[in-house]
Amino acid sequence: MSCRNASVAIIGAGDFIGAAIAKKFAVEGFTVFVGRRNADKLAPLISEVQAAGGSIVGQSLDARKEDEIAAFLARADQHAPLEICIFNVGANVNFPLLETTERVFRKVWEMACYGGFLTAREAARLLVPLGRGALFFTGATASLRGGVGYAAFASAKFGLRAVAQSAARELGPKNIHVAHLIIDAGVDTAWVRERIKAQDGDAAIDNLPPDRLMNAASVANAYWQLYEQPRDAWTFEHEIRPFGEKW
Amino acid sequence: MSCRNASVAIIGAGDFIGAAIAKKFAVEGFTVFVGRRNADKLAPLISEVQAAGGSIVGQSLDARKEDEIAAFLARADQHAPLEICIFNVGANVNFPLLETTERVFRKVWEMACYGGFLTAREAARLLVPLGRGALFFTGATASLRGGVGYAAFASAKFGLRAVAQSAARELGPKNIHVAHLIIDAGVDTAWVRERIKAQDGDAAIDNLPPDRLMNAASVANAYWQLYEQPRDAWTFEHEIRPFGEKW
Amino acid sequence: MSCRNASVAIIGAGDFIGAAIAKKFAVEGFTVFVGRRNADKLAPLISEVQAAGGSIVGQSLDARKEDEIAAFLARADQHAPLEICIFNVGANVNFPLLETTERVFRKVWEMACYGGFLTAREAARLLVPLGRGALFFTGATASLRGGVGYAAFASAKFGLRAVAQSAARELGPKNIHVAHLIIDAGVDTAWVRERIKAQDGDAAIDNLPPDRLMNAASVANAYWQLYEQPRDAWTFEHEIRPFGEKW
Amino acid sequence: MSCRNASVAIIGAGDFIGAAIAKKFAVEGFTVFVGRRNADKLAPLISEVQAAGGSIVGQSLDARKEDEIAAFLARADQHAPLEICIFNVGANVNFPLLETTERVFRKVWEMACYGGFLTAREAARLLVPLGRGALFFTGATASLRGGVGYAAFASAKFGLRAVAQSAARELGPKNIHVAHLIIDAGVDTAWVRERIKAQDGDAAIDNLPPDRLMNAASVANAYWQLYEQPRDAWTFEHEIRPFGEKW
Repeated sequence: MSCRNASVAIIGAGDFIGAAIAKKFAVEGFTVFVGRRNADKLAPLISEVQAAGGSIVGQSLDARKEDEIAAFLARADQHAPLEICIFNVGANVNFPLLETTERVFRKVWEMACYGGFLTAREAARLLVPLGRGALFFTGATASLRGGVGYAAFASAKFGLRAVAQSAARELGPKNIHVAHLIIDAGVDTAWVRERIKAQDGDAAIDNLPPDRLMNAASVANAYWQLYEQPRDAWTFEHEIRPFGEKW
Repeated sequence: MSCRNASVAIIGAGDFIGAAIAKKFAVEGFTVFVGRRNADKLAPLISEVQAAGGSIVGQSLDARKEDEIAAFLARADQHAPLEICIFNVGANVNFPLLETTERVFRKVWEMACYGGFLTAREAARLLVPLGRGALFFTGATASLRGGVGYAAFASAKFGLRAVAQSAARELGPKNIHVAHLIIDAGVDTAWVRERIKAQDGDAAIDNLPPDRLMNAASVANAYWQLYEQPRDAWTFEHEIRPFGEKW
Repeated sequence: MSCRNASVAIIGAGDFIGAAIAKKFAVEGFTVFVGRRNADKLAPLISEVQAAGGSIVGQSLDARKEDEIAAFLARADQHAPLEICIFNVGANVNFPLLETTERVFRKVWEMACYGGFLTAREAARLLVPLGRGALFFTGATASLRGGVGYAAFASAKFGLRAVAQSAARELGPKNIHVAHLIIDAGVDTAWVRERIKAQDGDAAIDNLPPDRLMNAASVANAYWQLYEQPRDAWTFEHEIRPFGEKW
Repeated sequence: MSCRNASVAIIGAGDFIGAAIAKKFAVEGFTVFVGRRNADKLAPLISEVQAAGGSIVGQSLDARKEDEIAAFLARADQHAPLEICIFNVGANVNFPLLETTERVFRKVWEMACYGGFLTAREAARLLVPLGRGALFFTGATASLRGGVGYAAFASAKFGLRAVAQSAARELGPKNIHVAHLIIDAGVDTAWVRERIKAQDGDAAIDNLPPDRLMNAASVANAYWQLYEQPRDAWTFEHEIRPFGEKW
């Protein structure tokens, strides 16, 4: 592992996708800054990365707080110039329209969309003077489709996609690569496995064919591919799904 | 003008589009309930509709307040069964990403997206038991495109479109027509004329060809067409633009 | 029925959608020119329209023949100035990719796409000098989605949509309304009923809820609405589906 | 360069994109089969690849001929199992609708769409029994947008996209990766430079900023990234554009 004088900031570093991204960029020599609501939950990730010789810093972070986002990114940038910022906060909920409380609607938006806007703006504040960098957003099927029961979640994800598009058009010419990664499938997480079990029974999980769910490591790999693109051939919207997915 | 025992509620009844919709549905015999931030500004519209023999009720309304929306729709429904609810709140702003304050981002969302969610849910609460009705949303070019400077506005409009889509998929089978009208052009308003003047000079306004801007009455007409569609051929997304518009 | 000095040309006047369009525009006072492969099959339509006091002319027409299209439109225009031209040729087939012969692929394209191009160009040749008119195309779910087994049909429908888009951008500023009507559902035709029966059994047809399929008359109505739009608020892409349709 | 027992077939191996793809996959150890209308023009590419130690076979190929496509792919597969098939035939033309001859419309379709269908089907015939492989299509801005003057080209590219989508949905579950690469920009070719010169003058070319046009090598790189994706995270539609591109 060669060490780079560059940092990656991951906002929303959950146990699956966020952790996989952190591990990938740490292996590639970046110092990785990871933030999530409860920093205690970052301990296993930090241990794993450090055991492998990687450089990682974790902290509690509420992505809905302007000053926390700013301070988190500044801290990363002070350690080593910020090169990549990834917004990966999820908030997948499903409620019938009539049962969607204003509190849920607002909270999902604050986490999945508003936090993304704050991230975009604060990352831009650091990256524009550097004249380069990358700003990536995690999207979902609901970024493009407002399905039954998804008024809150899809609204937030649609909104995040608009932020990403607008940022891409504004920052691209400034040599900052903005991309929106649409994960059009279930990722192999504890939560998705529970949901499958609840819907289709235990056997559905036992008999799950290999690669039927997306592995978090493959999402990290997709982000790595985006990072490696030369600037004359950048992707803004990047969709991925497993080979057997219906779409 | 034949009188119907049915009400139309317009949330966001501004001087142009909202007013034109109100006049159209009043002429068709509906009792029209119009709400906007400052009810004083509704006076000319109310006079005009009443002078023409129409039935109209105006009130101050903050579309960001759950209880105000609910009370407004309930009042309309108590007067005469609610048949159509139109969400027409605009919030068009343009700021570079770095100059978009969190206050602007939040406020634009609250007005243009969150208010639309509250409207959708509260209208559904009244229409689902009736087993019929229509719920329409005003969209814009920014509903589909996050352009430079539109992080806030496009994010809200994308989010509103998701609410509308989700509502359409959920309420359509319940015989409630949900539609999202994309106005892909400048509408002929004082504000648009000022903007053209500022950008292209006075002559640009003086020489504006007929029908180059969209007339508010034509937007009202588009809503009327949506209302008249038979339920075996409903439109969800309806786009309109002037014949000479570049797109 | 008031008589107008204006003609409508329908290319692909089948027993359902095409016939319904013809009846609607005849009732509105247009002289309707209807073309289909086998003119003999037009007899019932012609009788019905004439019995109702309408003006209609039918003829055999191969939409894949440049000169036939040109002659058909010229004939309509000579009778009464051409005002609306509707391309309604269908060619819905479904084959696995490996079983799609080059003959099928080519024929479906010739009927559903190439014929549409010829129609667009020849109609433009007549309408541009008149400085007004309408040019409408019938689309389908497959205009936007290449589903399993639809390599041939979707390819032709995608291609037709491109022709319509390109024509709209080119002819709109010349005051010619080009629209693409996406019928995102099964229309109530003998063929669709057979398909439902084959897939879901006789009971599925017997128990078909009202308005579950789209009525051909509603498609005609959608075209009429497009025709009635003022030019400051034209729709290019117009989607319709029954209230209970999954999408 | 390690040698693989696997072949890549490139249909439409022009001097820029096609050649760059060939060089990339040759460097990675594949035997590359390249076909284009006039095999003589392949000589420089073949020399260059062979000089670098790569394995390459060129031949004349009319992509509109079913038997030629079949024979070309069979020949590649007999040499070494076919692993990737790339359809890269271009046919970019721009004519006003009224000046688009039926000959042009048909020829552009035959080259850019029909040839793609033949390629998809014949590649599937070889890859399905192998239970793996990749099938990639080169798209363009006109794959998604029917602009002024693009009735013929956009129609063919829309149609090709439908073929690719349909193939992806059908072959994905069979472990064959189908992708559609949308090049949303001008690629740095002699033709594009001429076009810029014609439109904007000599200075526009002299002052062209670095990476303002897309390099053919970057397109090849994009295909390589698609090839390297794990099957639990495949991309179907992949868009690329230079950092400074307006979109």
